[in-house]
Amino acid sequence: MPTTSPSSSRDSSGRMERLRLSEAFLPTACTAAVFSGETHHLELNQIPLPMLGAGEILVKVTACTLCGSDLHSVEGRRKVPVPTILGHEIVGQIAAIGGDFTPADLANAPLHVGDLVTWAVVANCGKCFYCERDLPQKCLHSVKYGHEAFRPGKELLGGLAEYCLLVPGTAIIKLPPHLPTSVACPASCATSTIAAVLEAAQPLKGRSICILGAGMLGLTACAMSRSLGATHVICVDPQPYRRELALNFGATHTSDSMQLAETLRSAGLPHGVDAVAELSGNNAAFESVWPLVRLGGTIVLAGSVFPSPAIGMALEQLVRRQITMRGVHNYGPRHLRTAIEFLASEHQNYPFESLVKQWFPLEQISEAMTAGKEPSAIRIGITMTQK
Amino acid sequence: MPTTSPSSSRDSSGRMERLRLSEAFLPTACTAAVFSGETHHLELNQIPLPMLGAGEILVKVTACTLCGSDLHSVEGRRKVPVPTILGHEIVGQIAAIGGDFTPADLANAPLHVGDLVTWAVVANCGKCFYCERDLPQKCLHSVKYGHEAFRPGKELLGGLAEYCLLVPGTAIIKLPPHLPTSVACPASCATSTIAAVLEAAQPLKGRSICILGAGMLGLTACAMSRSLGATHVICVDPQPYRRELALNFGATHTSDSMQLAETLRSAGLPHGVDAVAELSGNNAAFESVWPLVRLGGTIVLAGSVFPSPAIGMALEQLVRRQITMRGVHNYGPRHLRTAIEFLASEHQNYPFESLVKQWFPLEQISEAMTAGKEPSAIRIGITMTQK
Repeated sequence: MPTTSPSSSRDSSGRMERLRLSEAFLPTACTAAVFSGETHHLELNQIPLPMLGAGEILVKVTACTLCGSDLHSVEGRRKVPVPTILGHEIVGQIAAIGGDFTPADLANAPLHVGDLVTWAVVANCGKCFYCERDLPQKCLHSVKYGHEAFRPGKELLGGLAEYCLLVPGTAIIKLPPHLPTSVACPASCATSTIAAVLEAAQPLKGRSICILGAGMLGLTACAMSRSLGATHVICVDPQPYRRELALNFGATHTSDSMQLAETLRSAGLPHGVDAVAELSGNNAAFESVWPLVRLGGTIVLAGSVFPSPAIGMALEQLVRRQITMRGVHNYGPRHLRTAIEFLASEHQNYPFESLVKQWFPLEQISEAMTAGKEPSAIRIGITMTQK
Repeated sequence: MPTTSPSSSRDSSGRMERLRLSEAFLPTACTAAVFSGETHHLELNQIPLPMLGAGEILVKVTACTLCGSDLHSVEGRRKVPVPTILGHEIVGQIAAIGGDFTPADLANAPLHVGDLVTWAVVANCGKCFYCERDLPQKCLHSVKYGHEAFRPGKELLGGLAEYCLLVPGTAIIKLPPHLPTSVACPASCATSTIAAVLEAAQPLKGRSICILGAGMLGLTACAMSRSLGATHVICVDPQPYRRELALNFGATHTSDSMQLAETLRSAGLPHGVDAVAELSGNNAAFESVWPLVRLGGTIVLAGSVFPSPAIGMALEQLVRRQITMRGVHNYGPRHLRTAIEFLASEHQNYPFESLVKQWFPLEQISEAMTAGKEPSAIRIGITMTQK
């Protein structure tokens, strides 16, 4: 497919000027790390830049952090349609806007070429069965960044590339200029997911919450729970150094699963915890917390995204104890906005910036994937800024 | 313990007059059906009327319907503290008010001697850990009508007696004069529980709901779901005559568990149902509906109140399908108010009045219990009005 600069002939003169400005910087093709399904292997290919349709936006990727799911995909533990460009924790600058319009971001700010932005992982149609039911992440016509198989002209839909194409229906948000890239990248995945998880766990003001897992999700949940007014934030993780990290992210108490009952007693919570955020995906962690949830408490589950053995559940317990269990998978646009607002106001109070252990240029994507496997690596980042 | 008329000496003249009026009708003792734990046996005893403390109210019971749980208790399938007076679906007239105050009902209407009322099954303190967490039914200092063991002066706390003592913290509501007793009695148990269940299943306007079980709870749920704007109300019950009854209570479709998938397909619900109200307490019913809940759907469970084998649950399914499961047990004062408002405006549109199959005087409580065992008896009533 031939590559051209974004559409231009039908535009007003003011917009033409802006497009010309961006065209000057637009190459005809860009480098992308393509995953073809062969495990442990990403290939650097040249992909033509797309012809932009009306409502489409081209973003020059600044950086992309590697989510755990990217690693799972490359290592063959997770099925993704291929060939594909992985990476969905993306920050970039608007390089071109297709069609004669000025898009707006989630806070209704107009978007222009040059703006630094991030966007929701799932673009949605706004009209289908699930969109009408406040479930945009399950949109019947969704485009999921970092998860789409190549279609002609729509190859650049992941973050491990120099450019990314944003389709209509993408919820975009301008980034506050002071937000470090290492803080902003995970916003569109981990931080937004936690915004959705904690929305489902509300109210938290003056309440206690038990957070299972102290990875990127759990640490973010500790800090955000505190900002929502939780008085007791008990983080559970088997790894001592991760528990230590949780204390830096606002956890008031930490524990391993075995000691949790004792930890709650000594924390002055004789009736159990008000809420649980299950972010570990570990059945045993869930089972250890189940008897410690107070009557009327809420368990939000987001960690179990891989098949695992069924747990045994007594429905009578759920009824008589008035437990609420809520599965959360991905998130909606409002959660991305909450995530960015939270990071903008709170990121300096917690060591979010340190969670990206190392940055690699796109050319060293294989080394980056290897580095991401180390248990101490909460996040590894890929930066396109050297180019 | 000596029995006297309610307190009188400290009252103002206006109130004295009202008290004198009621005193004229107050005996020193009344008949009650006492359950001492011996299965299948209720004994008619004379119980002294209590000395009313400040904030207490004495009600002359008009009628009480037998809830399934009353039958379970008498038949030994359910443990209750004994000796006790069972019965918690009660309607009565205020006979005396203790202390110098005018109580108000849930709608803030002042309550006077002679008013026809019903009240919430659980009286709560309003201040404890659970009351502060919107869970008055789990109040740490609760009094649960029809479930309390005798304490001196506090024997009359159940509906199977001529009088019932209402303690402070009881949420009372005046009954609309046109509401038949057979419609009003179950309001404080079945109807209020369904108000809580459907609140947890919201939104229902324009949505589909699957109701498991077509007993008192299920039939009420059918009618109330329709009044909340549900477009598809699919009632599931193994008994053909109960499914027939469900159609009279607003169900748009009925099915047995085996045919449910096919019923949903033919009802035009290819994505599954938005909500489920599990009122059968049957694990197999739950398991049959589980795969038919749409992504992001809600399952409210209220039927499983007896121990039963655990079901197998894949947490990954809960997460990826974004299912919400909520246990509901009893209800709070606002649900009683919703229940009465619903019955006042809707009871004539559905055959609620016919659900009380037969009325017995208190003296025939044994015959009433026997009649209640018949599967076709949705409710049996006990009336004190002949006295």
